[in-house]
Formats: sequence, structure tokens, C-alpha cells
Amino acid sequence: MKKKLKELAEWVDGTVIGDGEIEISGVASIEEAQAEEITFIASPKYLPKLSQTNASAVIVSKEVTQADKPLLCVTNPYWAFAKVLTLLSYKPYQPKGIDSNVWISPTAKLGKDLTIYPFVYIGDHCSIGDRVTLYPGVYVGEDSSIGEDSILFPNVSVYSGTVIGKRVILHSGVVVGSDGFGYIKDGKKNIKIPQIGRVEIEDDVEIGANTTVDRAALGKTIIQKGVKIDNLVQVAHNVTIGEDSIIVAQVGISGSTKIGNNVTLAGQVGVVGHIEIGDNVMVGAQSGVTHDLPANQGYVGSPALPHREFLRAITVFPKLPEMKKTLIEIEKRLKKIEETLSSRGKEK
Amino acid sequence: MKKKLKELAEWVDGTVIGDGEIEISGVASIEEAQAEEITFIASPKYLPKLSQTNASAVIVSKEVTQADKPLLCVTNPYWAFAKVLTLLSYKPYQPKGIDSNVWISPTAKLGKDLTIYPFVYIGDHCSIGDRVTLYPGVYVGEDSSIGEDSILFPNVSVYSGTVIGKRVILHSGVVVGSDGFGYIKDGKKNIKIPQIGRVEIEDDVEIGANTTVDRAALGKTIIQKGVKIDNLVQVAHNVTIGEDSIIVAQVGISGSTKIGNNVTLAGQVGVVGHIEIGDNVMVGAQSGVTHDLPANQGYVGSPALPHREFLRAITVFPKLPEMKKTLIEIEKRLKKIEETLSSRGKEK
Amino acid sequence: MKKKLKELAEWVDGTVIGDGEIEISGVASIEEAQAEEITFIASPKYLPKLSQTNASAVIVSKEVTQADKPLLCVTNPYWAFAKVLTLLSYKPYQPKGIDSNVWISPTAKLGKDLTIYPFVYIGDHCSIGDRVTLYPGVYVGEDSSIGEDSILFPNVSVYSGTVIGKRVILHSGVVVGSDGFGYIKDGKKNIKIPQIGRVEIEDDVEIGANTTVDRAALGKTIIQKGVKIDNLVQVAHNVTIGEDSIIVAQVGISGSTKIGNNVTLAGQVGVVGHIEIGDNVMVGAQSGVTHDLPANQGYVGSPALPHREFLRAITVFPKLPEMKKTLIEIEKRLKKIEETLSSRGKEK
Repeated sequence: MKKKLKELAEWVDGTVIGDGEIEISGVASIEEAQAEEITFIASPKYLPKLSQTNASAVIVSKEVTQADKPLLCVTNPYWAFAKVLTLLSYKPYQPKGIDSNVWISPTAKLGKDLTIYPFVYIGDHCSIGDRVTLYPGVYVGEDSSIGEDSILFPNVSVYSGTVIGKRVILHSGVVVGSDGFGYIKDGKKNIKIPQIGRVEIEDDVEIGANTTVDRAALGKTIIQKGVKIDNLVQVAHNVTIGEDSIIVAQVGISGSTKIGNNVTLAGQVGVVGHIEIGDNVMVGAQSGVTHDLPANQGYVGSPALPHREFLRAITVFPKLPEMKKTLIEIEKRLKKIEETLSSRGKEK
Repeated sequence: MKKKLKELAEWVDGTVIGDGEIEISGVASIEEAQAEEITFIASPKYLPKLSQTNASAVIVSKEVTQADKPLLCVTNPYWAFAKVLTLLSYKPYQPKGIDSNVWISPTAKLGKDLTIYPFVYIGDHCSIGDRVTLYPGVYVGEDSSIGEDSILFPNVSVYSGTVIGKRVILHSGVVVGSDGFGYIKDGKKNIKIPQIGRVEIEDDVEIGANTTVDRAALGKTIIQKGVKIDNLVQVAHNVTIGEDSIIVAQVGISGSTKIGNNVTLAGQVGVVGHIEIGDNVMVGAQSGVTHDLPANQGYVGSPALPHREFLRAITVFPKLPEMKKTLIEIEKRLKKIEETLSSRGKEK
Repeated sequence: MKKKLKELAEWVDGTVIGDGEIEISGVASIEEAQAEEITFIASPKYLPKLSQTNASAVIVSKEVTQADKPLLCVTNPYWAFAKVLTLLSYKPYQPKGIDSNVWISPTAKLGKDLTIYPFVYIGDHCSIGDRVTLYPGVYVGEDSSIGEDSILFPNVSVYSGTVIGKRVILHSGVVVGSDGFGYIKDGKKNIKIPQIGRVEIEDDVEIGANTTVDRAALGKTIIQKGVKIDNLVQVAHNVTIGEDSIIVAQVGISGSTKIGNNVTLAGQVGVVGHIEIGDNVMVGAQSGVTHDLPANQGYVGSPALPHREFLRAITVFPKLPEMKKTLIEIEKRLKKIEETLSSRGKEK
């Protein structure tokens, strides 16, 4: 798709400096951009690169007022870049039909305009919505449903009884609905507790490669609408993740924990089971969350502390050896004073 | 399966208060349970919900003596719930046969009453026990064996030469027998050390989704009987995990380490290579184990300390800035005293 | 393959003590080795096992000068073991051809002497080099290329537009080219930023089971030649990993970070986005890297500190409660002294 620079300016509510009539057909990084492409500079420190790029135009912040090539000036260049990229890279969905080398249960209910690649398995009583794309190696277990416009990338496994909403994206290797990790000790033996619940993934959720979402023991594991989960994340049985939350790579969330709306868990965070994290909470990378976290705050550390409290403490951590040395020295000086005082006392 | 409440009481060694003749067909959570279902209350704090559930009966602890619906009173409600759930959700195995769209080597030895879904690959000289279930996308490399009643969920990869016991469950995306991570530097280049060992998984092991178990360099990586491993765990080459141990999600165990029997490693624990963890050890979440851990103790922290020692130290951690301030202040006061004493000394 | 002991000695530049004419056909661990096999002792503490092994010969360090069986004496027994193992376990590549139950685009360009197993998918305009092996369940998206002699193990997913070099090994469940984790907030909603870049994996890279490598937003995610990545690692969009670097299991590298050449990141390390790690840096297990790390140093801790600084500080950590107690006690003694001095002052 091609757009004039002035059309893009309208699309992102910006202004053009230079020739607004030039045509833009793509977006690229400042180093790779070529003619007919637009690039962007989000931080002032990259402004010197403005004169080196081969891009035909550059998205910049409103402070920039001149350059030797056309500029698109906006309040937030990164946001405008994302908007322009979305516009120019948009490709309308084209159904490719159903390959013959698949296994689809005769009892499955199939929508229209599907794209089903070879080596896909769809079990009994499944329901597949319109315009769904199932890549090679996708497994959809019996009694599952997938909402319209969803995309399951290669080798995704969806266990039986799973409910997946509309416009959901599951990347390669995602596993949804595997058994929760539940055992009870009988002496030293671990006796498996049957996991008879299910997983519900609501509309507009995206889940990254090789992430795992376990089915509930009883009831449901729920990923609410708009949640975005990165790669290699573990979501245990009976967890709920609230709307629009962001779960970064390699996070682990233990059983029955409830994450609020609009929460951000940064990379490699671990959360224990049976707790609640309030709305709008942000938890820093590698933190360990061991108890309920009240809403609207940032936390970091393992165990997690309020953000500023942790920062103050961790700054002192490298000074521990020095503090210990000081302490020993102080004790010596103190002892000496006490002896002096004691002997002077006797002198009197 | 339906059972009378009095039959369930017998099964879990409990007593009925109310009508023991009512029939129970399923188990559900206290919020979701409906007529003919039983639910349970494991903690006294949920007792107020007793009057709100639609369940036909409730498993409670022996302290509860009355309610407006039939009760099943037991010593440990959670254990009784697990036992009742196991009884009522039991479904006898029904072989589905071997799909025609599979690749099975003519030299593979197949047991009877198998369930082999489409798109399964079984290599040369494999041995598949009776009543084994292989879901779509399962790969079993040559010279491997799988014991009777085992279940391999979709897209499991078993490399060549792997030995899998009876009643083993491997969830989707599990990889068993991939090469151990072994290189030797030749200048700056990393030269691969051939990994010619194998993996043995003993009876009654369950391994969670997307977990990886590497083959040994020489010899074997061994998962002993009754071990339960959660999702996204890494087990490196030549590791041994002792009987009935519990390995929670996202744990990483480095090469040649030996984990004892009945050990619990909580979520995201990391263990270095070439060490031993004794029997019955429990290691807290996110801990880093850097040396041998003697048996029968709890550890936590990175590097891991005995449980109580860590708790005492981590409690002081947020007070570090205050301690540092106190220390500086004390030094000033001390200096003042020393000057006073010195001047008084001169005065005399 | 069989070799005389004296031939092996020549191969590793060592000397034989005993009968150099004996034939060796394999390598095994000291406990498992049998007749015709060679084993090795890398550490003096295992020397007592020398008399117990059934191996026909033993690789030892040059300090060992006698034993009741033939010895191969070398400067570095572990290195020599790796060399001998590589020699004896070498199997020349044998192409198995292309199975009929695959889906290969008519526009794909295929090299010669291929091994393509059943249930493989190769998309439009792909290029597959000579002697490539694709195991069952491998997916290669359109416009991708795979260099000669590369091996993709079962259920690997390669998204469209990926470039893979020569002699690359991707273990089971690896995902290459999945979308980077990029969203921009529109109010509370997360709007997906299209990820239109790609992944390039250079020659001689090996990537472990279930590791994920995301495609770039714009431009490329690059794994440079000779890099070795372990299992369950997350490599985010626009990351570059420099030549010959070693990335151990469960490491997570955030977006746009640049890792130098010959770097080692130990297990479970987390690295934030948009930073640079210099050449030859080593980062200890479970560390959290939050800012640029200068070259040629070791770091550890979360946040990461220079290695010695961290070790000194962490050694004091368990003594925190004692330090706090001492501090309180010192304050009391100080107060007492101050009171004494004050009263004596008045006395005068």
C-alpha cells in the first residue's frame, strides 16, 4: 500500500515539513530504510543520524523543525511509527481453504473462509469460527471452540474442552489446557489429582511461543480479553489474568493466583499461588511475589518490595563488606573508650 | 459414575451428617457445583460459603457438625476431595486403534490395544507397550521403548534410544533426549562434544508441557520412578532425579547433578552442575543452589541458605539504608567522644 | 570405527603407557565402559576408580605414570576425551530422501541428498540446501532459506522470511521468527505493533530444545556464527548475539540488546532491553543485567555487579541479623558513655 506523506500526517495527527506529496510504501529502521520508505527517531540522541538515512521521510518529535528531507512532526514519534506501520503493512485476510491432508472430525462445526494447513487435527465436537487460520501441526482436542479471525501458528496444542475467543493469536509451540500440577502425598508417593477443569482465553489475547497454560483442577483458568503474554511463560491451574495485562517472557504464575487488570509482570517474575495482585500493578524483572500486592503500585525484588524501598536497599547491598568492617572497628574504639572511662573512674 | 454419599464416606473413611442415600455424580468448586455434585471446604475461612453453594453435599473437616445440607466429615478434606474426584472422574481406557495416516517402521514392535492418532512417527526398532496412547504430532525416534499404559500428548518429541517406563505421562511439547549442552573451546571456537548417552524415564513419571530432558554425554540421564515434573523445566545431561521428587515449573538443573529421593524444588529454582541434593530436601522458589545440600532440610535464597537463616537475613534487607545511616551517625558520635576524652585527658 | 590406542595417541598428541596395539571401538563413562572401550579421568579425585573400570584403556593426565591397564597420557584429559569421542562416534551422513507424506511448495528450491521425514511442511519460495535433514513435524514458512548440512529436529517451527546458515542444528520445539513482543497503549488497550523484520541465524549455530527466537520489529534479530544456545532460552526482537557466545538454559534476553563476541551467559540470567554486553564478558547464573557491561569481565548478582564485588557482599548477607543486633547494642553502649561523660562533665 502506498500513501502520500500528507495522508500519513493526517492519519497520525501530525504536520509535514517539506514535500507532503511524496509517496511512502513502507517503514524501515533508520539504517535500513531506502527510497519510498519512512523511518522514525524516537529519542533526541539519534538525531545526528537524520542526515545519514536513505529514507524518503522521517517521523520526528515536534521540536525538530528542519532537515534536508521531508519530516513528519508529531507529539509521540514512537506511537506515530506504530500507527503508520500498522497502516502500511496491513494485508487483508485471504482464505486458503482446507488442505486435504488433515484430520477433522465429522462432528466438528466449521465456519467459513477458513485456512487450514496440512497435518492439522481437529477433534470431535469442536467449533471453528469464520476466517480462522490453523497452521501445520496444530492440534485442537475434542469439545474445544475457536472464535473467528483467530490464528494458531505451527505446532500449537490445544487440549480438549478449551474455549478460545475471537482474534486470538497463539504462537508456535503454545500449549493450552495441559493438566495442572496437582498431587497429594500418600506416604512418599505422589498421587495425581485429576484435573477436570478447563481453560478460557477471551477475545484479542496474544500468547507467545512455547508458553504453557494449564487447565484448572476444577473450574477454569482464565486469560481475560486483551491480555498479551510473551514467550515461555507458565500459567498454572486456576489462575486468572485480568484484562489488558502484560506478561513478559519467562514469567511463572502459580496456581489459583488472581492477577488484576492492566498489570505488568516483567521478565522472569515468579508469583506464588493463591494470592491476588491488584489492578495497574507493575512488577520489576526477576522479582518474586510471595503475598498479595495492593493496586496501583510498582514492586521489585525477591521477595518483592515497593519499588523505591527496594532501590534504596539494593544500593546499600554492595557496601555491606565496608559496613561490616566499620562495625568491627567501631566496636574496638568503643571498647577502648569504655576501658578509658572505667580506669579514669577508678583514678578518681 | 454415580455413588451414594454413604459409599463415598466409606471410600475416604469419613462420616455422614444428613442423608447418606443421596447420589453424587461429580465434583465441582464451591461456586460452580450444582445438584448431584459434591464440593469441599479445606480451610475454615471458607465455611461461610457453606450456605451458598448449590452442591448436594460438602466435604468438610470433622470440626463441622451441622449445616442445611448433607456433610461428609473427614480428617483431611483436601485429601478426601482428591480421593473422591479420582473415584468419580475415572474413565476406563478405550483403545481407539491406529490411524492410517501415521509413519510406523516395519521393524517397530507394537503392543496391543493401542491408540495412535494421525501424524505420529515411530522409528526403527522401537517398542511400544500395550495400551499406549500417542497423540497427533508425536515423534518417537529409533531404538526407543515406551512402557504400557503411557500417554504422550500432542507434539511430544522423543529422540532415539530413549527408554520410557510404564504409566508415564508426557504433556504436549515435551522434548526427551535432545543433545546435552557440551562444547570444548578450541581457541574461541566452540567444538561440539558428541552426546552419545541416553535418557531413561522410569515408571509413573509425569512431565509437564514444554519441559526438556537432555540425553547424557555418556551414560544416562535418569528420571526415577514416581517423579513429577511441571512445565518448562530444564533437565541437563547426566542429571539423576531421585524417586518421588517434585520439580516445579521453570526449574533448571545443570549437568551431572544428582537430586535425591522425595526432594521438592519450587518454581524457578536453579541448580548448578556436578552437585548432590540429599533426600527430602525442600528448596524455596527462585533459589540458586551452588553446592551440595545435606538431606532433610529446607533451603532458600540465591545462593541458597538454610531456610531460617535466609528468612532472618532477608527481613533485615529492607532496613539496610537505615542501618547505614545509623552507622554514619554512630561514627560521628564516637569521634566526638574520643575528642572529648582526649581534651579532658590533656586538661588533667 | 575402530582405532589402535597408539593411533588415538597420535590424534590427541599424547603418549601411551602399556600396549599401544590394542583396539578401541568406543568411549564410555568409567562405570559403564566395557572391553574395547576407552574412558577418561579428568580429576585426580577419581584416580582410585582406575583399578575398577572394565575399560580397555584410560585417558589420564601426564602425572599418572602407571596402572594395570594401558594409559593414554595427555595434557588435558577432558579435551582429549572430547577429541577421541568425536573421532570414534563419527558417522558419515547418509541421505534418506524425501518421504511422500510431506507438503513441499512447488516454488521451493531443493538441494540434493536431502533427508525429509513425513509430516514436514516447506512453504513457497523456500530454499533448502544440500544434505539438509528435516525431521517429522518441521515447519518452514515461506521465503525462508536453510543452508547446507543443517539439521532441524522434530517439531521445529521456522516462521516465514527466516535465514538459516550452514551446519546449523535446531533441536526439537525450537521456534524461530515468532512475532516480537511489541504493543503500544491506546488508553488501557494494548495495540499490536506489526513485527515485519526477520531472523538471521549464521553458520555453525546450535540452538537447544524449546528455545524461542523472535523476529525483529524492523530489521533483523541476528544469531552470529558459532553461537551455542541451550534449551528454553528467550531471544527477543532485534537482539544480536555475537560470534561464539554461549547462552545457557533459561536465559532471557530482552529486545534490541546487543551481546558481544565470546560472551557466556550462565543459566537463568535475565538481560534488559536496549543495552550492550561487551566481548568476552561472563555473567553468573540467575544474574539480572540492567545496564551496559564493559568487555572482558565477570559479573554476577541481580542487579549484576563485578564478580568479586558481588562475592564480597553476598558473603556478608547472612550476617545481617547479627550486624543489626550489634548496631543496636553499640547504640546503647554509646548512649551510656555519653551520659557518663555528660554527668562527669557536670561533676567537675
